[in-house]
Amino acid sequence: MSDTEISPLQDPTQEAQETANENPLLAAIDLGSNSFHIIVARMAQGEIRTVERLGEKVQLAAGLDEQQNLTEEAQERALNCLSRFAPFLTGIQHDNIRIVGTNALRAAHNSQQFLNKAEAILGFPLEVISGREEARLIYVGAAHSLATQKGRRLVVDIGGGSTEFIIGEGFEPLALESLHMGCVAYTQRFFNDGQITAKRFQQAVLAAKNELLNIVKPYKKLGWQQIVGTSGTIKAAATVLQQQGWSEHNITREGLVKLSRELVKFKQLDQVEIEGLKADRAKVFPAGIAILLAIFELLDLDEMEYTEGALREGILYDLVGRFSHQDIREQTVNALIERYQVDAQHGQNISTTALHLYQQVKKQWQLQGDDFNLLLRWAAQLHEIGLAIAHSQFHKHGAYLLQHSDLSGFSRQQQSVLAVLVRSHRRKFPMIEFRLLPDSLQQPLIYLAILIRLSVLLNHSRPDEAITCVEIKVEEKQINLQFPENWLEENPLMQTDLELESQYISGSGLTLAFS
Amino acid sequence: MSDTEISPLQDPTQEAQETANENPLLAAIDLGSNSFHIIVARMAQGEIRTVERLGEKVQLAAGLDEQQNLTEEAQERALNCLSRFAPFLTGIQHDNIRIVGTNALRAAHNSQQFLNKAEAILGFPLEVISGREEARLIYVGAAHSLATQKGRRLVVDIGGGSTEFIIGEGFEPLALESLHMGCVAYTQRFFNDGQITAKRFQQAVLAAKNELLNIVKPYKKLGWQQIVGTSGTIKAAATVLQQQGWSEHNITREGLVKLSRELVKFKQLDQVEIEGLKADRAKVFPAGIAILLAIFELLDLDEMEYTEGALREGILYDLVGRFSHQDIREQTVNALIERYQVDAQHGQNISTTALHLYQQVKKQWQLQGDDFNLLLRWAAQLHEIGLAIAHSQFHKHGAYLLQHSDLSGFSRQQQSVLAVLVRSHRRKFPMIEFRLLPDSLQQPLIYLAILIRLSVLLNHSRPDEAITCVEIKVEEKQINLQFPENWLEENPLMQTDLELESQYISGSGLTLAFS
Repeated sequence: MSDTEISPLQDPTQEAQETANENPLLAAIDLGSNSFHIIVARMAQGEIRTVERLGEKVQLAAGLDEQQNLTEEAQERALNCLSRFAPFLTGIQHDNIRIVGTNALRAAHNSQQFLNKAEAILGFPLEVISGREEARLIYVGAAHSLATQKGRRLVVDIGGGSTEFIIGEGFEPLALESLHMGCVAYTQRFFNDGQITAKRFQQAVLAAKNELLNIVKPYKKLGWQQIVGTSGTIKAAATVLQQQGWSEHNITREGLVKLSRELVKFKQLDQVEIEGLKADRAKVFPAGIAILLAIFELLDLDEMEYTEGALREGILYDLVGRFSHQDIREQTVNALIERYQVDAQHGQNISTTALHLYQQVKKQWQLQGDDFNLLLRWAAQLHEIGLAIAHSQFHKHGAYLLQHSDLSGFSRQQQSVLAVLVRSHRRKFPMIEFRLLPDSLQQPLIYLAILIRLSVLLNHSRPDEAITCVEIKVEEKQINLQFPENWLEENPLMQTDLELESQYISGSGLTLAFS
Repeated sequence: MSDTEISPLQDPTQEAQETANENPLLAAIDLGSNSFHIIVARMAQGEIRTVERLGEKVQLAAGLDEQQNLTEEAQERALNCLSRFAPFLTGIQHDNIRIVGTNALRAAHNSQQFLNKAEAILGFPLEVISGREEARLIYVGAAHSLATQKGRRLVVDIGGGSTEFIIGEGFEPLALESLHMGCVAYTQRFFNDGQITAKRFQQAVLAAKNELLNIVKPYKKLGWQQIVGTSGTIKAAATVLQQQGWSEHNITREGLVKLSRELVKFKQLDQVEIEGLKADRAKVFPAGIAILLAIFELLDLDEMEYTEGALREGILYDLVGRFSHQDIREQTVNALIERYQVDAQHGQNISTTALHLYQQVKKQWQLQGDDFNLLLRWAAQLHEIGLAIAHSQFHKHGAYLLQHSDLSGFSRQQQSVLAVLVRSHRRKFPMIEFRLLPDSLQQPLIYLAILIRLSVLLNHSRPDEAITCVEIKVEEKQINLQFPENWLEENPLMQTDLELESQYISGSGLTLAFS
């Protein structure tokens, strides 16, 4: 990995286009709390072959001020890095790119502001993912980089702001957790003035153990046969221990204890210098080792192997899965339907009607691409999920569940989109909720919300088969619904519904007419 | 039922005390959207024998202004009525009284303000219950007033602000719904200026049918063999139809159609006068009949019998259940634990530790009575319920679920209490959440929250058995935890936890010391 050095491909654009059709280029950018990384790879025979990998220590987490806002300096560091990454995305199909932010962007109160600037530079939307989604993707990346082995494996990834713990079997994660501890965050908390003492190091270990207490028991109960670590801190630990001869191949507990003693002797963070340790890692290394030692001690580990595959490889494999009809998001939606006992048939009917209307308006309303039809379908399938909590205000409960649940495969923004579509499917049209979304999404999502509302209305009597006999025409802000002859006369209840709905819809700035 | 007339018992205090021990008096007040009712009864051999029943048409729902606030006049009407009810509560044990508000108080934005005034008059806290809880209690009341019969029964209760629909078997409700339609609300919506026309009547029927569409299909699928109606509107309909000879004993669809035609002929609400119809019912009768007709037509009913038992009888039977170890709330808590896959053993441990601490402090902290130990136990058992949504911020998700779910047997205020206890069990102490509760509950609940926090901390490593070796002493705002000798030295993680917790707890105005 060519950390910090950047050497663009000769001509990525041209090369990409030549083989784009058979073996398209894929790219993932991981906006970590310590480093940003980009990986460009080619998919061939179901495997990913790395074309380019770059990383920069942006230390975003160190740029969070006391109000949990990213400082201007930190944002500038990050944006400068992204403008160096940007050329590598040229010529790659939009659907083949994913840019993902993790803990520092989860924590920052002003992350939307930063994301807008970053999107302007990259010309591509960025996503922030939850801690568990990060853990899932790390596992996907790690599992693909390891030889198939029987039994369970524990995967640990110490990041800058969070540490992920996954137990899995084969490619299947069984337990996913993301704890609030990381090498940048702990450096700030325990070694803020640059001093290292044995006492402070011990405090860091204790704090990490306290976090770990929450998962130790259930994790030990699941158990594991193989122990794997990923990412910078663990890679550096493995390299140093090997080069120092403190352990043979893997990271051992003895080796870690030795390393800890040596680190404390430096007394100052900026004095830390060990063979095998890169200069830009040194400053956050003691905190990372304190966390790693806590993990070894509390989970009773003796040895841990390092593997290269982690978050960004996971993102790419996940992307490949979406193309080959293994979109994890479908499984997630189905699992939600089952878990919250949603009326699946009715959800399916709403989705059928909504897609029927969508086909008729997508051109005029410019709703092509960008997963709009997927989001419309999922929101329709899930619109009644809030009934599991209570009937009263169930659209709000549904929105809460979709906003806050750990939904595998979905970014936080996609969850917000599902939430707002479910939130707005009945009663007054909540314009204020749309105003909180990125500008570019507001109008398209208002249109999608209206399609869902109309579909729910058309299927109000919960017929066995979805209503698809209605034509919809749109002109500017005017919606016209055309019913088959005599249909409305024979359905006076529908007429009452439509009259009420046309009042509600006017709140969205559109008008509804029907005949 | 002596509607509107009030004649207090000779000397309720004396009589109550004489037989309090064997056959205690019970009382329920139902603050309905149309009428307030009080029932005083004696429990004997598992049955309730009515001692007194009174009702007043307060028409609370008619006193909601455009901002959904109860007007001063409406509040005064209500408080006057309650001061007439108050003498009937004298001498009855607090545990034997329940005062319950329904739709108008659910809907009013300023209901807490009203409840405080009412509590001052009655000397007893009032509860607001959810629509489904209202439905459940109506069913309990109705089921106890009917002969045991095989098969399912549909129970319909048209109130002033909401209409409840229950399907049940024996004493067990199978489906509970509360729809936003009622005789007072519909009178205001469709006959606001006092005119009755055939068109308006038909619009009211259509609006009711639109509400009904949401439940028709699932209800018909469950099916029923017996159809029962309760409360004022349906009682009046039955009486009028019988006295007019339009139906023999039960309410029939034909009879209702005839009645509707006659009602429209009056043209003005204040002209409505039919034999068998009380004057104070007449004004809201047409709207009630429109709703009833919609129910008959959309649910395909031919006949409905009237029964006396409804909400207030249900409240009393529910109260009796609580004494005889059939507290429905226990079932509800267990159902939540199962549904959201809460770690039941850990919840039980937290509850054991919390009750162990509670026993030591309840005197000094004045936590006796008022269900405090029940609420403490349930909150402890349920403190991890939010994990079902996501790990991150799970205390907030848990509070959301407890606040918003339909929880059988719990009033809204009790749900708020459980929610705030779960909300505050970890991380920063959220004083602001307590400030939203009634004054008299704030300090006791802060104490309970601290007991739960300490219990979670003491069991942080999730031991198999609850920690009960800790002594707690409190003096004013000072909490002292005393651990067995050497215990803390051997548990350095606990010490770290306690140090952090003493910072957090200081946010509640108390201080924590330990040794």
